Amino acid sequence: MGKISEKATVAATAVIHEDVVIEEGVVIHDYVVLYPGTVIRRGAEIFDHCILGKLPTSPGSTAKTYSSEHGITEIGEESILCPGAVIYTGTSVGHHTLLGDHCSIREKCRVGNYCIISRLVTVNYETTIGNHTKIMDNAHITGNMTIGNHVFISVLVATTNDNSMGRSEDAADHLAGPVIEDDVTVGAGANILPGVRIGRNAMVGAGAVVTRDVPAGKVVMGVPARVIRDV
Amino acid sequence: MGKISEKATVAATAVIHEDVVIEEGVVIHDYVVLYPGTVIRRGAEIFDHCILGKLPTSPGSTAKTYSSEHGITEIGEESILCPGAVIYTGTSVGHHTLLGDHCSIREKCRVGNYCIISRLVTVNYETTIGNHTKIMDNAHITGNMTIGNHVFISVLVATTNDNSMGRSEDAADHLAGPVIEDDVTVGAGANILPGVRIGRNAMVGAGAVVTRDVPAGKVVMGVPARVIRDV
Amino acid sequence: MGKISEKATVAATAVIHEDVVIEEGVVIHDYVVLYPGTVIRRGAEIFDHCILGKLPTSPGSTAKTYSSEHGITEIGEESILCPGAVIYTGTSVGHHTLLGDHCSIREKCRVGNYCIISRLVTVNYETTIGNHTKIMDNAHITGNMTIGNHVFISVLVATTNDNSMGRSEDAADHLAGPVIEDDVTVGAGANILPGVRIGRNAMVGAGAVVTRDVPAGKVVMGVPARVIRDV
Repeated sequence: MGKISEKATVAATAVIHEDVVIEEGVVIHDYVVLYPGTVIRRGAEIFDHCILGKLPTSPGSTAKTYSSEHGITEIGEESILCPGAVIYTGTSVGHHTLLGDHCSIREKCRVGNYCIISRLVTVNYETTIGNHTKIMDNAHITGNMTIGNHVFISVLVATTNDNSMGRSEDAADHLAGPVIEDDVTVGAGANILPGVRIGRNAMVGAGAVVTRDVPAGKVVMGVPARVIRDV
Repeated sequence: MGKISEKATVAATAVIHEDVVIEEGVVIHDYVVLYPGTVIRRGAEIFDHCILGKLPTSPGSTAKTYSSEHGITEIGEESILCPGAVIYTGTSVGHHTLLGDHCSIREKCRVGNYCIISRLVTVNYETTIGNHTKIMDNAHITGNMTIGNHVFISVLVATTNDNSMGRSEDAADHLAGPVIEDDVTVGAGANILPGVRIGRNAMVGAGAVVTRDVPAGKVVMGVPARVIRDV
Repeated sequence: MGKISEKATVAATAVIHEDVVIEEGVVIHDYVVLYPGTVIRRGAEIFDHCILGKLPTSPGSTAKTYSSEHGITEIGEESILCPGAVIYTGTSVGHHTLLGDHCSIREKCRVGNYCIISRLVTVNYETTIGNHTKIMDNAHITGNMTIGNHVFISVLVATTNDNSMGRSEDAADHLAGPVIEDDVTVGAGANILPGVRIGRNAMVGAGAVVTRDVPAGKVVMGVPARVIRDV
């Protein structure tokens, strides 16, 4: 069922597994690997060494177990993947979105349109990211997290979804990623704990440790973070 | 002395240098590079673009100097290396261990069985990690560090081994990595200073800066970290 | 105008685009990609999977727009690039400098001689780094930043250049990266805000959040950072 447009430019060194769709105007650079189920929409550009559609796998050391069936991994029109980006199976990336060098997005995520997921960012499984949202270099976005539209998350921000920090046997059953509403700004090196909700248009200061919900339109700072003023 | 089992699956694009051992049931994906002395045990899977057995090298800008002889770089049975993992020469990884995308482990480390070293984690030289231990995304594990069994180290945790921060001419001679005992949990974005010992079953809160030893079974939090209660 | 010395060692799998200069004694490992305008000086070694001279590109989601013309991307004599390093066009790296695995340096940067830019470090555009300076693993160096000579920046340090955190429409016009003078030491996990100047020979403690200028020769610590003593 795969189909590679004659109007796409595919490097001779790219490895294209079965059941891959590449639409017209797409450019695939050297040493890219496309696993089954990968769909690349019109005009997208995939730079060297990217890997798309990888199955999650486990040697028995993870809390989760995984299907061995590939889902659909979709890259939207005109989006650009920089060198070394790794996208797992079942994840979709919208149109006009930029993924930075060596970023990694796990399975079953939804990334919107006109986003930037910058260099060396890691995004965990089943997370949803809205449109026009930017996540800067070396940040970590946890699993089961929801991030709205027009959100800005600065460099080296940490987010987590497991209050037991691996101590609970059944932690995988009640993980709670943070929720970040539209228009929120999170400063560099901030740390957002499991289950926290950050209200619309709130600002989190650089280095803040956010242990509880942040009301919409408020600025929080400090360790632990406290409301200091309106935006 | 190298030997590649006929019952292994090795991509045509993999670069296998001399003196490499690949046992039966191993899968080597595209564009993997295996330097001399690499040994991959039964059933292990090495995903695309991994590099194993690299020599450490210096152009004269490092405090250390390096041998130009390859040691043994061993990946245990059924372990899985995700795309872009880089393992230096003389490091061994146990069985049923998972290494995440683009992680990098320097020379002469020992990583145990049933571990997870997650995506974009960096581990420095001559560090020992026990069994069933998990180190999450974008964390840094320093050199000469000892980490026990069933330890959980969360995302973006920093560890260091040089109190002089490069200011002492002979710093390389008295580096002291932290010691993390069995069953310890370290929260996201925590920062563990050189030489600190974290006692068995202790918990370090998210964002804590740990400047002194933590007694076994205690919870510490804050900047600098203070004991706040028993686990 | 490209020229590849007969006294260089270039892997058969390396992809060399047009207008690339490789001088004598250079070693290019497997699966390296060299884009137009790349110049590699005598005796430099480029390990597997590195990508040099990449153009910055945008699908319309970035504040900046980019030229589609390649500048000169220069790697100095005897420098070493570890696996997966990505260097954008118009950046120059001095001699005897070491770049770690999977680091990424954006366009129009100047990195000096005898430096270490360690593993998984990200450096943003148009930043200048002096000689004998070390930036450790998983740190982020922002754009438009100036870093002096003999500076030590520890692991997971965050730096930023945009006080509006993307909120200002014309933020790109008045970005101000920090200035770090000669002989400064910055501890692990520290966080340096936009426009801050850190004076010569100052020390920033681990985990400090630096919100204002630091006088020369002083030690600062805490959140926010305060002067606690002379060096």
